Amino acid sequence: MAYLNENYLKLQTGYLFPEIARRVREFCEKNPDAAKKLIRCGIGDVTEPLPQAAIDAMKGAADELGHRETFRGYGPEQGYEFLRSAIAQGDFRHRNLAVADDEIFVSDGSKCDCGFILDILGDQNKVAITDPVYPVYVDTNVMAGHTGSAGKDGRFDGIVYLPCTAKNNFVPEPPKDHVDLVYLCFPNNPTGAVATREQLGRWIDYARQHDALILFDAAYEAYISDPRIPHSIYEIDGAREYAIEFRSFSKIGGFTGVRCGFTVMPKTVLARTDSGKKLPLHPLWHRRWSTKSNSVSYPVQRAAEALYSVEGRKQCRERIDHYMGNAKILREACGEIGLTVYGGENAPYIWVETPNGLTSWETFDRMLKEINVVITPGAGFGSEGEGYVRISAFNSREKAEEVARRLKRL
Amino acid sequence: MAYLNENYLKLQTGYLFPEIARRVREFCEKNPDAAKKLIRCGIGDVTEPLPQAAIDAMKGAADELGHRETFRGYGPEQGYEFLRSAIAQGDFRHRNLAVADDEIFVSDGSKCDCGFILDILGDQNKVAITDPVYPVYVDTNVMAGHTGSAGKDGRFDGIVYLPCTAKNNFVPEPPKDHVDLVYLCFPNNPTGAVATREQLGRWIDYARQHDALILFDAAYEAYISDPRIPHSIYEIDGAREYAIEFRSFSKIGGFTGVRCGFTVMPKTVLARTDSGKKLPLHPLWHRRWSTKSNSVSYPVQRAAEALYSVEGRKQCRERIDHYMGNAKILREACGEIGLTVYGGENAPYIWVETPNGLTSWETFDRMLKEINVVITPGAGFGSEGEGYVRISAFNSREKAEEVARRLKRL
Repeated sequence: MAYLNENYLKLQTGYLFPEIARRVREFCEKNPDAAKKLIRCGIGDVTEPLPQAAIDAMKGAADELGHRETFRGYGPEQGYEFLRSAIAQGDFRHRNLAVADDEIFVSDGSKCDCGFILDILGDQNKVAITDPVYPVYVDTNVMAGHTGSAGKDGRFDGIVYLPCTAKNNFVPEPPKDHVDLVYLCFPNNPTGAVATREQLGRWIDYARQHDALILFDAAYEAYISDPRIPHSIYEIDGAREYAIEFRSFSKIGGFTGVRCGFTVMPKTVLARTDSGKKLPLHPLWHRRWSTKSNSVSYPVQRAAEALYSVEGRKQCRERIDHYMGNAKILREACGEIGLTVYGGENAPYIWVETPNGLTSWETFDRMLKEINVVITPGAGFGSEGEGYVRISAFNSREKAEEVARRLKRL
Repeated sequence: MAYLNENYLKLQTGYLFPEIARRVREFCEKNPDAAKKLIRCGIGDVTEPLPQAAIDAMKGAADELGHRETFRGYGPEQGYEFLRSAIAQGDFRHRNLAVADDEIFVSDGSKCDCGFILDILGDQNKVAITDPVYPVYVDTNVMAGHTGSAGKDGRFDGIVYLPCTAKNNFVPEPPKDHVDLVYLCFPNNPTGAVATREQLGRWIDYARQHDALILFDAAYEAYISDPRIPHSIYEIDGAREYAIEFRSFSKIGGFTGVRCGFTVMPKTVLARTDSGKKLPLHPLWHRRWSTKSNSVSYPVQRAAEALYSVEGRKQCRERIDHYMGNAKILREACGEIGLTVYGGENAPYIWVETPNGLTSWETFDRMLKEINVVITPGAGFGSEGEGYVRISAFNSREKAEEVARRLKRL
């Protein structure tokens, strides 16, 4: 009989969001009246319509496919030149960051990329992950066999956890010991924290000293309002040698259902063989896409390209401003009722201390039952997330205001 | 320094199709006049416009995303219910094959699925692969570390190769020895061969005796014209216990650039742990998608659903008939000039013996230079592909007829 990948059996019950969905479904079935009033601030999913520029581009591309003269079949596995170029120019060279078109690899989302990147890396790597953390980094390492089993605190043997607490303002310093791979995410999901240039500089220094590789998730960079905060790891000197960056159109362009993101893989990032030979990762990543994918739907790539047009940029900006307006309302409401809040100023997530010593799942259940609001329990993001909940600012203004009113009732 | 996945270094130079693209590009740069006359019968990529039903559905879905009331963000990671249900009903239950909606897993193409399936399987499995073969099965096993190095014949240590030759009519019998995993693809890419009910029955018998798992690629099932040939492995008794099936909309609906396919994962397929515990693979596959993906673009899923409408089916059928008309023309042209041809009757590929003892790459180069036609060298599909080339029927009628004329000139 074929063998299965036993590492999957080490995974904790249910990936966080399906577990939330299950509890919400159960509650709604038992409480059909309350279900009607339910407001979801749980999963970080956008609510505002797709930018018109993206819709027009997608429909135009669909029409192109309807004529033999403009029909396109298989595209380049790493993404169309038009999109790779729009990204490299619009997000990087426009900001004086040297990123070549062919260092951009288009994908169907940064969630996927965060998992796929392990395809080209060795199983011997010592991996560091922040706690709390976006669960995908941990779970994909578990699946790949890079960990032992989980302890009672949900932490897996073999992973170096970097606690992100109120004490370090949710931005960890590099560890004392050696690690090979570090996952960093700023603006952070779930805490909403951002890292300063100096803090990221210390991580690049660490990477240089330890020859470590930083996997930098910048999916929320567009939410940064403070001009001193870097949007890309490549704003830090030396990062082109030590960092791979993941980006997404999900939260910028409302693409959570459209699916498009990308990885920046500088040709200067090296990794080693067991025998110590140093080789660039770029050709491996290129090969991974050639063999395992046919890239992203053509109409989707055209929609993503349209986000870089003048109109597209304006429409993205309106949406980001809208969500950050919600964040302000929710932050203030939490503050008014005496809760301690973090984040929500350069990120669409507000990280709230649970009141009265409640656990984060208790707070989740209480908010679901008493004010019919779905949030995300911090413990779902790691043991250091216990004692916090994440409130997402992705909502209509009306609902954000209603959540603020209900919070004050709590 | 971070370790890289050294298995990638075992891969042969260039994945087949990028290598063909490179040779063609080089030829075209040196011969700009000939380049204008070039006809591509190489990569199996469709040429006819997307069915109007799919275009309309995609545009309608894009418009839905433009309004708050009908906007959709993250969808279910395994695919929308509407599509899973349309597939299970239209492709399986409609043919009296018991497949449940939640045994369908929507993906962005069967190429991807053929690679991803290894995520949930153990590294201890003994793997059998036909020769010649779609390179993705081999290369993804190499990347996952399931093989040793390649020999001079391009074969990798650790893989059991099943020769598909004129002698067995390109359908291999099960091996004498034990294997855990077998990749089968019928109608076959590249040979165009189909397997009868009896032949597939012997494979299911083998799977039962050896507790083996069959990975069945049915991406070309819609091209079967002979009513005696099974379209799905599930037409064979017992297959629900021993087979996973991959399907694609690429060649049925012209989706090579739109990207959608699916896997059928019956809940009855079991695999084992090292200690001998037997578990269903379905929950692992479900978890894989929850953690590593957010499924396929919503407008793409709507476009795929539209292929199951009355209009959609008719438009798909017209395209398949068109390509099979080309196949007939090309088969006959090859026959007329004395070449020995296989396939092309229940598949869009014609498998042609190379003339005059030429190797398959020599034939490739000769056809490129002398008649400016791009075909695929059989050796690119494995050592048993040497001595053959694959001619694809995916073309306009005009070009298929022109290739037929040029062939007769050869």
